[in-house]
Amino acid sequence: MSEAGGLVGLPVTESAPVERGDAARNRALLLAAARRLIDEHGADTVTMDDVAAAAGVGKGTLFRRFGSRAGLMIVLLDEDEKVEQRAFMFGPPPLGPGAPPLTRLIAYGRERLQFVWDHRALLADANTDPHMRFNAPASLHRTHVRMLLESAGTSGDLEAQTQALLSLLDADYVTHSVEDLGHDLDRQGDGWESLARKLCGN
Amino acid sequence: MSEAGGLVGLPVTESAPVERGDAARNRALLLAAARRLIDEHGADTVTMDDVAAAAGVGKGTLFRRFGSRAGLMIVLLDEDEKVEQRAFMFGPPPLGPGAPPLTRLIAYGRERLQFVWDHRALLADANTDPHMRFNAPASLHRTHVRMLLESAGTSGDLEAQTQALLSLLDADYVTHSVEDLGHDLDRQGDGWESLARKLCGN
Repeated sequence: MSEAGGLVGLPVTESAPVERGDAARNRALLLAAARRLIDEHGADTVTMDDVAAAAGVGKGTLFRRFGSRAGLMIVLLDEDEKVEQRAFMFGPPPLGPGAPPLTRLIAYGRERLQFVWDHRALLADANTDPHMRFNAPASLHRTHVRMLLESAGTSGDLEAQTQALLSLLDADYVTHSVEDLGHDLDRQGDGWESLARKLCGN
Repeated sequence: MSEAGGLVGLPVTESAPVERGDAARNRALLLAAARRLIDEHGADTVTMDDVAAAAGVGKGTLFRRFGSRAGLMIVLLDEDEKVEQRAFMFGPPPLGPGAPPLTRLIAYGRERLQFVWDHRALLADANTDPHMRFNAPASLHRTHVRMLLESAGTSGDLEAQTQALLSLLDADYVTHSVEDLGHDLDRQGDGWESLARKLCGN
């Protein structure tokens, strides 16, 4: 937070209440086990049995803590969203403050494409609920892109241009582009940059 | 089809096999009754009982013909899609051939915003299936917008720009813009026009 965040006054999502002792250690252990398994085998194939076994706890403990497999996955996604969010709000340039807005916007798109691809299964689930698509945490990204576009001096309808740019980061679209069109993330990043430059007039 | 469709060689969706006699008349009667009720009361509130009563047939006839309420609604949407499709492919300018591509693109956006708003409930249903979002009949619109952008001499990544423009016509987004942002269809049409002009360099 040492850099002046002036233009981008995005609130960081509130953290959960601080947990202490066994409960917190247990939770961290379970999340670490889940992450390890997902890294090795992919999010689609990891079961609650796998996670419980890897963490050396009973399946009941896992369900009591996260409610369901979906609940566990949402906690993992949320943790990663917070890390990414800190990077583009407070981290070093070109993603964070200190670089010109268009440079930040281009860096944000490439970073987010990778994030969306890595988290595509969970984000696609969230996508099927229209309220999720236009509300928090999606609204943090919307606000960030909108403020960078505005700071870069874009002309025209700011809302329409924000929506247009963000559509390139839609999880279903990113997946469709890779799997059906054969456009890898680099090429999609170039598309993002080309559109961002055009909207900002260079 | 008298105008040279040269640049826009979009195939018209195949029609259903020609029906003759009572079956065809019966079908037309049922669809007309459903349309009348929807115009009067809105698509959300019309039941299969209402349609059967208005058409003077038994409910069984209605279900045999369309399978379900959703089946009936899809037939109505499909009919309307075909009418709109003919208008932008073969109808008079500025929507159809004869006007410059950017003029057609602007007219298409405004026309489609109205269509999407009028059919938002059904389109939002279709939207929840990612395959529906990037395949037929969505692909006809995608092809049309892409060809107009290309004909208008847009620079940069054509695929990304097509996606960006089309995102302004997403049924959930149009509804969100009207209901949550208070942006009426005229204002959204202006946003479409502003983005289209920017992408095409004027």
